Amino acid sequence: MADLSVACAENLVKLRENKPLIHNITNYVVMNYTANVLLAAGASPVMAHAREEVEEMVGFSGALVINIGTLSSLWIEAMLRAGRTASKLETPIVLDPVGSGATRMRTEAAKTIIAETNVSIIRGNASEILSLHDEESKSKGVDSVNTVEEAEASAKILARELGTTLAITGPVDFITDGDRVVRVHNGHPLMPVVTGTGCSATAIIGAFAAVDPDPVSAAATGLAFFGLAGEMAGQSAAAPGSFMIALLDALYQATPEDLKSGCSIVEE
Amino acid sequence: MADLSVACAENLVKLRENKPLIHNITNYVVMNYTANVLLAAGASPVMAHAREEVEEMVGFSGALVINIGTLSSLWIEAMLRAGRTASKLETPIVLDPVGSGATRMRTEAAKTIIAETNVSIIRGNASEILSLHDEESKSKGVDSVNTVEEAEASAKILARELGTTLAITGPVDFITDGDRVVRVHNGHPLMPVVTGTGCSATAIIGAFAAVDPDPVSAAATGLAFFGLAGEMAGQSAAAPGSFMIALLDALYQATPEDLKSGCSIVEE
Amino acid sequence: MADLSVACAENLVKLRENKPLIHNITNYVVMNYTANVLLAAGASPVMAHAREEVEEMVGFSGALVINIGTLSSLWIEAMLRAGRTASKLETPIVLDPVGSGATRMRTEAAKTIIAETNVSIIRGNASEILSLHDEESKSKGVDSVNTVEEAEASAKILARELGTTLAITGPVDFITDGDRVVRVHNGHPLMPVVTGTGCSATAIIGAFAAVDPDPVSAAATGLAFFGLAGEMAGQSAAAPGSFMIALLDALYQATPEDLKSGCSIVEE
Repeated sequence: MADLSVACAENLVKLRENKPLIHNITNYVVMNYTANVLLAAGASPVMAHAREEVEEMVGFSGALVINIGTLSSLWIEAMLRAGRTASKLETPIVLDPVGSGATRMRTEAAKTIIAETNVSIIRGNASEILSLHDEESKSKGVDSVNTVEEAEASAKILARELGTTLAITGPVDFITDGDRVVRVHNGHPLMPVVTGTGCSATAIIGAFAAVDPDPVSAAATGLAFFGLAGEMAGQSAAAPGSFMIALLDALYQATPEDLKSGCSIVEE
Repeated sequence: MADLSVACAENLVKLRENKPLIHNITNYVVMNYTANVLLAAGASPVMAHAREEVEEMVGFSGALVINIGTLSSLWIEAMLRAGRTASKLETPIVLDPVGSGATRMRTEAAKTIIAETNVSIIRGNASEILSLHDEESKSKGVDSVNTVEEAEASAKILARELGTTLAITGPVDFITDGDRVVRVHNGHPLMPVVTGTGCSATAIIGAFAAVDPDPVSAAATGLAFFGLAGEMAGQSAAAPGSFMIALLDALYQATPEDLKSGCSIVEE
Repeated sequence: MADLSVACAENLVKLRENKPLIHNITNYVVMNYTANVLLAAGASPVMAHAREEVEEMVGFSGALVINIGTLSSLWIEAMLRAGRTASKLETPIVLDPVGSGATRMRTEAAKTIIAETNVSIIRGNASEILSLHDEESKSKGVDSVNTVEEAEASAKILARELGTTLAITGPVDFITDGDRVVRVHNGHPLMPVVTGTGCSATAIIGAFAAVDPDPVSAAATGLAFFGLAGEMAGQSAAAPGSFMIALLDALYQATPEDLKSGCSIVEE
């Protein structure tokens, strides 16, 4: 859809002009790559997780990105403190429920964050997203979903129940707030062979949310930008090491014109 | 030896087909690179250290890799919990005793893990491995070993005493279970100039142990694959930055045929 | 100034010959890159933060680098323990007060480390450095400094009050012990687009301090070496991903002759 491609280009321009501070409470594995992704795109990343300072830090940030990839009880507390402050300040919160559904600790942490803070956007794969429904939900859990269509129908119900925008990423990304539905067709097969590309996509959504007040648009345009950078990287790199470096280069070098012509975003 | 080169190629094929989940409790410095090494090779890495979830996580993993490179008392407890569960489930455990012998905390942590869990394979340099002997051991500690031959003799005794397979890496890798002795001649001089190559070699051994029930074969073929990828990387890279990226590419691009012809594994 | 360029070349030669162990207590985001920077330059990095072992570890290190980029109360205690031991042993301590001035926790941690240990060199940007003055200081804080000249005058006063060498990095680096003033003109515009280049510059200063007993010379020559490597990287890389890899290559490949001719160090 032409409109969202234009919005994508405009968001990138705003991001590079405003360089919003993006506060990340994210996992150890991807901290470095995520910071480099945000810097390359034009944002100002800060990684801070100490309970003693997260409320102060989120106070001057443009968005809060919470990623539960490596948890401990202290970190969950820091996530909640930062999230409550962000909610009060109406700073957008983007959640990446890494591994939700795989262990109880992760599922519960993700649900607690959703319950106690005002999450704008949640990005994950289908099983992570569908694990977030509670027992009274009318959506189906991942175990009882057999087709992509069923997953999408459940995600629409869940988005409405949670009052948030859900972004399920995969070969085609599916974004919904329960009402609108957008699909993003950008991306490259080497992306899942590099650790932290999912987490970095979430961080880019956070950066776009800092400059775009519409969560569906921020999620869709952020994913399109990141996916298109992956396509650009794939033109010069055929294996994951050189691909992950070329992806950083592409995030830095992609122009608004590249986005206008290259984004493949379809709103239903 | 032809047999182990063939086993190496077969293990790589199995790894790429089965994509076993490899549960790593490893140090902060190398988490990202290790995850990328495992992904490039074809495995599915997960990095999880929370006491609350490690037992659940290891329950659906093909191998557990424990690396003591950055310790704290909480992490040691998580390593023991995961290790005990893995032992019960007969899931192979691979230990990297980083810095054992350098500080008391590390030496004691490594010995406790060995005592309380069923470690299949330990990979380290000569001083780390020889630091693992207890006072009644008939093996010699690193301080009283002066030649490679003495180190190898002590390692054979120690492997028998510990009931495990030891892999001492260096210009030539030495693998023994106290009975069999295998040497791997693959590798490249730039490998020690990149942080985390030793730790990543241990993780690759973990991935091979998930598809090969023979610890000596898993250790030797894992090290040969990793060393050969280093040789391939060294063909295009002459300095450590580009080398570490080319190594990821080589792990992804190496074919079973490359392994059959390029592995240099000699069993005594 | 010819003298410091020669000192820079000599320090690099000593570093590569002696391979001093550099003990880093640094933040999660940059641990991997910092270790690779130190390895590429020729030093032997160790990253260790456990309270139980830092005193032992610093006992056989050539320098201690403390970086407060990701804090917790346990880590602050470890920094103080390591710092007190280093002070007693007269092992040089280099401090990177990341984010000091941004949150109370960071400002207080930096000031406590300065008060309780014998810090040789502090490297940061202007606002971080100027945040370190206490209430009775005659230097001005960052909020009341409007020009580079004022920042430099305040830094000179502060260095004298703290009894340490301050290195303010930016397009031109400013190094002073309150008496001597040195400026380093090396560097590249892509350096701030890669996360951890500031932290890595601090670590390189630590490596140079392990072989050069003059803190002003160690800071200036370390920064010149690192900045010149950035210039060399910029000759082949035009975007941050490939630049960060080329920087590691340049640190490894730069020769003493490159430093003699390429360093741009001016002592007032």
